Amino acid sequence: MPSLTTALPLLRWLRTYRLTDASADLLAGIITAVLLVPQAMAYAVVAGLPPQVGLYASVLPSLAYALFGTSPYLGVGPVAVNALMVASALAVVGHGDPAQQVVNAQVLAAICALTLLGLGALRAGAFMSFLSRPVLDGFTSGAALLIVLTQLPALLGVSAHSGPLLPEVLLAVWHALPTINWPTLTLGVASIGLLMLGGWPLRALLGRLRLSSFQADFVGRLMPLIMLALATVAVVVGELATRGVATVGDVPPGLPAPSVAFLRASTWLELLAPGMLIALISYVSSVSIAQGLAGRRRERIDTDQELFALGAANAAAAVGGALPVAASFSRSALNFSAGARTPLAGVVSALLVGCIAMWLTGLFGHLPRAALAALIVVAVTPLINVHGFRRTLAYSRSDGLTFGATFVVVLFLGVERGLLLGALLGVAMYVWRTGRPHIAVVGRVAGSEHFRNVNRYHVETWPNLLVLRVDESLYFANASRVEETILDQISARPTVTDLVLLGSGINHVDSSGLAMLETLLPALREAGVCTHLAEFKGPVLDRLKGSGLLDTLGPGRVFLSAEQAITALAEPYDEPVSI
Amino acid sequence: MPSLTTALPLLRWLRTYRLTDASADLLAGIITAVLLVPQAMAYAVVAGLPPQVGLYASVLPSLAYALFGTSPYLGVGPVAVNALMVASALAVVGHGDPAQQVVNAQVLAAICALTLLGLGALRAGAFMSFLSRPVLDGFTSGAALLIVLTQLPALLGVSAHSGPLLPEVLLAVWHALPTINWPTLTLGVASIGLLMLGGWPLRALLGRLRLSSFQADFVGRLMPLIMLALATVAVVVGELATRGVATVGDVPPGLPAPSVAFLRASTWLELLAPGMLIALISYVSSVSIAQGLAGRRRERIDTDQELFALGAANAAAAVGGALPVAASFSRSALNFSAGARTPLAGVVSALLVGCIAMWLTGLFGHLPRAALAALIVVAVTPLINVHGFRRTLAYSRSDGLTFGATFVVVLFLGVERGLLLGALLGVAMYVWRTGRPHIAVVGRVAGSEHFRNVNRYHVETWPNLLVLRVDESLYFANASRVEETILDQISARPTVTDLVLLGSGINHVDSSGLAMLETLLPALREAGVCTHLAEFKGPVLDRLKGSGLLDTLGPGRVFLSAEQAITALAEPYDEPVSI
Repeated sequence: MPSLTTALPLLRWLRTYRLTDASADLLAGIITAVLLVPQAMAYAVVAGLPPQVGLYASVLPSLAYALFGTSPYLGVGPVAVNALMVASALAVVGHGDPAQQVVNAQVLAAICALTLLGLGALRAGAFMSFLSRPVLDGFTSGAALLIVLTQLPALLGVSAHSGPLLPEVLLAVWHALPTINWPTLTLGVASIGLLMLGGWPLRALLGRLRLSSFQADFVGRLMPLIMLALATVAVVVGELATRGVATVGDVPPGLPAPSVAFLRASTWLELLAPGMLIALISYVSSVSIAQGLAGRRRERIDTDQELFALGAANAAAAVGGALPVAASFSRSALNFSAGARTPLAGVVSALLVGCIAMWLTGLFGHLPRAALAALIVVAVTPLINVHGFRRTLAYSRSDGLTFGATFVVVLFLGVERGLLLGALLGVAMYVWRTGRPHIAVVGRVAGSEHFRNVNRYHVETWPNLLVLRVDESLYFANASRVEETILDQISARPTVTDLVLLGSGINHVDSSGLAMLETLLPALREAGVCTHLAEFKGPVLDRLKGSGLLDTLGPGRVFLSAEQAITALAEPYDEPVSI
Repeated sequence: MPSLTTALPLLRWLRTYRLTDASADLLAGIITAVLLVPQAMAYAVVAGLPPQVGLYASVLPSLAYALFGTSPYLGVGPVAVNALMVASALAVVGHGDPAQQVVNAQVLAAICALTLLGLGALRAGAFMSFLSRPVLDGFTSGAALLIVLTQLPALLGVSAHSGPLLPEVLLAVWHALPTINWPTLTLGVASIGLLMLGGWPLRALLGRLRLSSFQADFVGRLMPLIMLALATVAVVVGELATRGVATVGDVPPGLPAPSVAFLRASTWLELLAPGMLIALISYVSSVSIAQGLAGRRRERIDTDQELFALGAANAAAAVGGALPVAASFSRSALNFSAGARTPLAGVVSALLVGCIAMWLTGLFGHLPRAALAALIVVAVTPLINVHGFRRTLAYSRSDGLTFGATFVVVLFLGVERGLLLGALLGVAMYVWRTGRPHIAVVGRVAGSEHFRNVNRYHVETWPNLLVLRVDESLYFANASRVEETILDQISARPTVTDLVLLGSGINHVDSSGLAMLETLLPALREAGVCTHLAEFKGPVLDRLKGSGLLDTLGPGRVFLSAEQAITALAEPYDEPVSI
């Protein structure tokens, strides 16, 4: 039974809270809110929802996470990749009614919450480990590219409705090209330029002006807000709305009263699978962000408690009229570098966004949609991880293939299938690889007790002995291949009377591996070869003993080390020979 | 490019063929045919096809296998489990027209053939290794139980049509119970009794009568034919047909002319998936039978060539108007123990069955269906492997679970889903298990260079050193768990300044494992702990070096052995301490 301080980490950090913490949290909260407001609206738009829904998703869910979460830094709210998954799910059930789509987004958040809380109750967060790094990276890269593509219509000022797959989007944009609105495109390109200048060029300039790196960073972080303000001013002053520049339009002020009306929606069943997949991605990405940041301060996070905290945040999103939420990498990193010490920093951001949603939505009426699209494009482009793909491919062909295949499937078949097929492919690749184990004929390095591959080292061997090291656990995927290799090696060496199997690389023997040994050992004995085991690990030997296999070794023996086996078995010989 | 003798093993063994081989093959062929004739008709009935189709499946396919196969012993023809899979596939597309169902069976055989030949061309037989032993055993046991259940109506003399799932069959039999035909039931029970007497009771009796074990065996093998003859006589003499005992009825004499009319069938697409699954099961079971028998004579079979041989056999089945074929365990074992030396034994059996199909089908007209059902029940009941389940469960809980789950899914959701879900579950269980690796804190056995788990042995340790051995490859399913364990161990030992990772159990590091190390090592260094690697395998080290990870070790070093690491790193101390 978890204790109260485990279930409510708040109780732990609040006890030692000091005034210096408060000033640090306040500053970090304000800085993060500056990034949160435009991102929240932009990602709601990515999800195909009104922008204010993004603001709602930044208030109650952040407060819920602060109550239950174990990371002081996580910025929980709407995030780009999840927004795309929401858009993909809503496209299937939606029928153009925006109010209904908000209800469907709440249903998705509720399914997310139930999934995460259920896994938390089962302490089953570990099942997420089926997603490998190449799958996650390929998935994120594909989703980011799709997000960029879906912003093209807003940047070009055309109306092109399409499904969220690469060919659909490109085709729709192609057909809409003749109707480009040039003022919109100009505004969009200028916004992207301004945001990119806010990156290292601005910081380099400010550095020359003798601003500290923290101050330069802060000005850089302000750039999205500055850009949005300039774009709004340009629309108002230039009367661009009359020239066809689309704006966000009226954003109703206030926060929705908490409501469970979404429980009566008819779309629960249709949204079940996508909602569960969103929960999966939310958890995996949030926990990896939290672990990365905690590691940099020698802190730990509680991954099971994070299931509850993210579940609570999504439950708050559902009740608060918002879309599913997760931790944003950019906002969490900002929160961390701005000096947040406790989850109170997140509370500060949430309250600020709440104030804006209550009283300042009037500011967004003339905000051009192209500027929001520019913000999205600049924010998600770095997620298209070309460098990571090159590195993965260089390190491991099969991992690179998994990365690339997941990326392509996301683009052409969508985010959900991309995730599922990627996960299956990652597992299949692993089974495929371990199904072809490295099996080395080894000999002794003269004058030592070290045994090495006869093909890599000049080592002693013995005419009556074959010493084989299998560098993989024996299990169903490789059992028959190991058997074949052993039989081939034996039949190629007519003088061999004793086989020594070195088990230092064998971490398990499953029942398929056991069945293989149970047929192989008697067959070898009939063929005049006695099998011995050496360097098998304790737990593996215990199991083999329990199964009765060791009784079938006959005259074969179990040795602790290869050296002991050689001492007992090697026939006297005059000089080292290679067999 | 495979040579001609690889593609046609016939050329190899025919060159050294002698007269003594011929007499041995002739005898074995005759003995096997005695079992083949009743089984062939019975399994065709299991598949929901006319009995003569089973005879057709025993002629051309056996000849094709003899031409291309590498095992002298395999009895290729209709087999029970495949027959059930055929029944399950035909139930979906069938509309009661028996002639059309024969065409559909030919389509299935053709899909099997194309699948096997395609895999043979790709030399991709290894992909079959995704099926673990527990999955195969659970699948076979479930299929065998289903086959027994589907024979209940014939044994009870009721007509109960139902789908091939456990609840459907039981419900149909339950509803038909009031219409039991007692003469049929009596005949069926008597047949089962006679067949069981033909097992060890008869052999024990014949042993007492001083018959050799081979002679006793032969008489026992004759029992099915004797039983069928007695049952036929009973029907004719007792005029049981007038009392409602169902018989096989007219079996048309002759063999169908080879035909490719089935190519025009409209059911190819619907039968594609089941056909491929039948190919999978046919290959896996046939090769494992062939390998088992070859191992007993120190022979080898060529698993890639077997893909071609079984593909050719199924192509012959399609053209010859039959159902898909595979190797039968009981007939192959009989062929082996009856002394077969070359595939000519199979040719003899095939020719005998061909003669019977041409001229002796009149004998089967009065054969009661209940006797065929009795034959099936007695033949497949041993495939329900309760002992194997108990053993598997005792050896490994997760393997036992996979066995049981596959069995249950086959019974309740059918053979195809059982096979697919079982394969997925087997892989998932493996990932789950390797996702929780054994990680041992190790120390040195005093006075030696052996390092052992501190919890299992009394060993030396050092206050500034933590020596950890990870007994699993580092990959996506365990990367975060290994990271957590290392961080937990480090934070529990404040005096530790150097961590030595022993890599003797690490056979691979995939890119998720690499990414974990890339964040873990700098984090540990920030925390004042320097990481060293020892006993890593050559190929693993090569890869890590190529990735640049070793450059991030900083002052950390790579040691060949744990002993060298201790010599270099251990601080002087007065007496062994336990940390």
